[in-house]
Amino acid sequence: MGSAVTSNTLIALPGDEALAESLAGGLDAAIAALEYRRFPDGESYLRIHDSLQETTAVLVARLDRPDPKIPALLFAADLARDLGASAVGLAAPYLPYMRQDIRFQPGEALTSASFARWVSRHFDWLVTVDPHLHRYAGLNEIYSVPAVAVSAAPALAEWIFTNVEKPVIIGPDVESSQWVEAVAARHGLPWRVMHKQRFGDREVRIAVPDLSALEGHTPVLLDDIVSSGATLARAAEALSDAGMASPVCAVVHGLFSESCRETLKAVGVRRLVCTDSVQAPEAGIVLAPLLTPAIERMSDCAAGRR
Amino acid sequence: MGSAVTSNTLIALPGDEALAESLAGGLDAAIAALEYRRFPDGESYLRIHDSLQETTAVLVARLDRPDPKIPALLFAADLARDLGASAVGLAAPYLPYMRQDIRFQPGEALTSASFARWVSRHFDWLVTVDPHLHRYAGLNEIYSVPAVAVSAAPALAEWIFTNVEKPVIIGPDVESSQWVEAVAARHGLPWRVMHKQRFGDREVRIAVPDLSALEGHTPVLLDDIVSSGATLARAAEALSDAGMASPVCAVVHGLFSESCRETLKAVGVRRLVCTDSVQAPEAGIVLAPLLTPAIERMSDCAAGRR
Repeated sequence: MGSAVTSNTLIALPGDEALAESLAGGLDAAIAALEYRRFPDGESYLRIHDSLQETTAVLVARLDRPDPKIPALLFAADLARDLGASAVGLAAPYLPYMRQDIRFQPGEALTSASFARWVSRHFDWLVTVDPHLHRYAGLNEIYSVPAVAVSAAPALAEWIFTNVEKPVIIGPDVESSQWVEAVAARHGLPWRVMHKQRFGDREVRIAVPDLSALEGHTPVLLDDIVSSGATLARAAEALSDAGMASPVCAVVHGLFSESCRETLKAVGVRRLVCTDSVQAPEAGIVLAPLLTPAIERMSDCAAGRR
Repeated sequence: MGSAVTSNTLIALPGDEALAESLAGGLDAAIAALEYRRFPDGESYLRIHDSLQETTAVLVARLDRPDPKIPALLFAADLARDLGASAVGLAAPYLPYMRQDIRFQPGEALTSASFARWVSRHFDWLVTVDPHLHRYAGLNEIYSVPAVAVSAAPALAEWIFTNVEKPVIIGPDVESSQWVEAVAARHGLPWRVMHKQRFGDREVRIAVPDLSALEGHTPVLLDDIVSSGATLARAAEALSDAGMASPVCAVVHGLFSESCRETLKAVGVRRLVCTDSVQAPEAGIVLAPLLTPAIERMSDCAAGRR
């Protein structure tokens, strides 16, 4: 068949226009402006002024704090299709609702599966960055459309290598070991993984690995998500108890809920950095160069399948 | 076939527990408690502790200001089905997203159709009260599952007959004439309809009908929805200009966005009343007695179809 070439039109959800612009540059794609406002009664109004005929519409959406954004996201997908887009893709650097991947207690909603169904019914494909895959081995377990998980490891590794002197990459729990290994491997950096026990949403205890060989190193606590900051804070305290220097925290997705920043400052974290998968002052690691090839590949594949 | 008898279990969305209780009384139905909270990152957590096996689950949800509520609503529907409910119905006294029923401008999202698809995919049937049917003749134009629109007219008529002296029912625009006629007819009250021109979301002008024969009557401005209050305020001003007494405003759905109450007070509205389809201090008209027979009928029909 050979590779198909398709023209892409990027459409940003409210607040994500700058991310869409940066992706458009790398993709040689057009931008269609989404007019968005709320009616006085709180309902969403959406309008796209540009034609989408003969193009793949790619919705660009940062989906942290997802609930109020979900209706607009799904409305926009329906609208793009109504306006003639030949395919509708989703570029969502942070994929929400990955954490409730099992019924921990009987009667709990399996929100990961529901959300995946909604996205799969509205979009032809999905590109995201480091989804929180824990009990699911891959996105295809719950997403019925092609879904690519881009790794932020190259960008995180580059940032750490450039900005931190003599780093040792430390994962705050076993779940984080997949990101820790991937980042450490790129520049052959040393790494360790701690062991975490979780009690409820916020309470966490940490078991520290042997750090005796790593004196003089700067610990870089690495995780996929920071939310309340409890996990990283307990890890930072454990490092301090073990006599390590004040750590840098580097995460893929900086959700920063509640008093996260204060919590991390209070335990002596010297610097906090995350990617721009979420809007935050700490979002110093740019994902666009990693996202654009994946979007291009998905868009071309979807066009080839037609 | 004869009528099937099914056991119903009502499940309230957060804040709608009292409404569910009042419906359960009329239906001889069980209540299943929905545990709802948000994770620190803003994602929804839902859990239902009771079994739903062999029952019809009926979600009770007030859907004004809908966007933040929509994910929880759809999660709850999926969960009820996961927990073994033989059917899942929706009792939503206020049905949102009925107003964007046409693309007024090219490129606008037809949110009414999208929202109807989401509900139709998650629920087996729907009971609501006076949906804003304007360009759609019936809910079945957009809802693919059985949908019953209960009329609040009996409850509104009763309230007006009991509480207002010598009332004349007045519709602020042609769209309102369906509610005005239905309410006036029940006690043979006089009625009139004004003519409205709308400019944008908030600006409205009114043409007044001949009111000369109605001196000494108390005008009752009646509409299906009050949101910004602009329509009712212009109507109240027009009544004042025509020499009528200060009006009562009676509406089915009291959305009360922004400075609605102040707007209506400023133009001399003497009293404002609405049904309990939305939570509000003005919600003095109880819908449960009208809703329960419709819920019972839909639930029995759905059970009979199986």
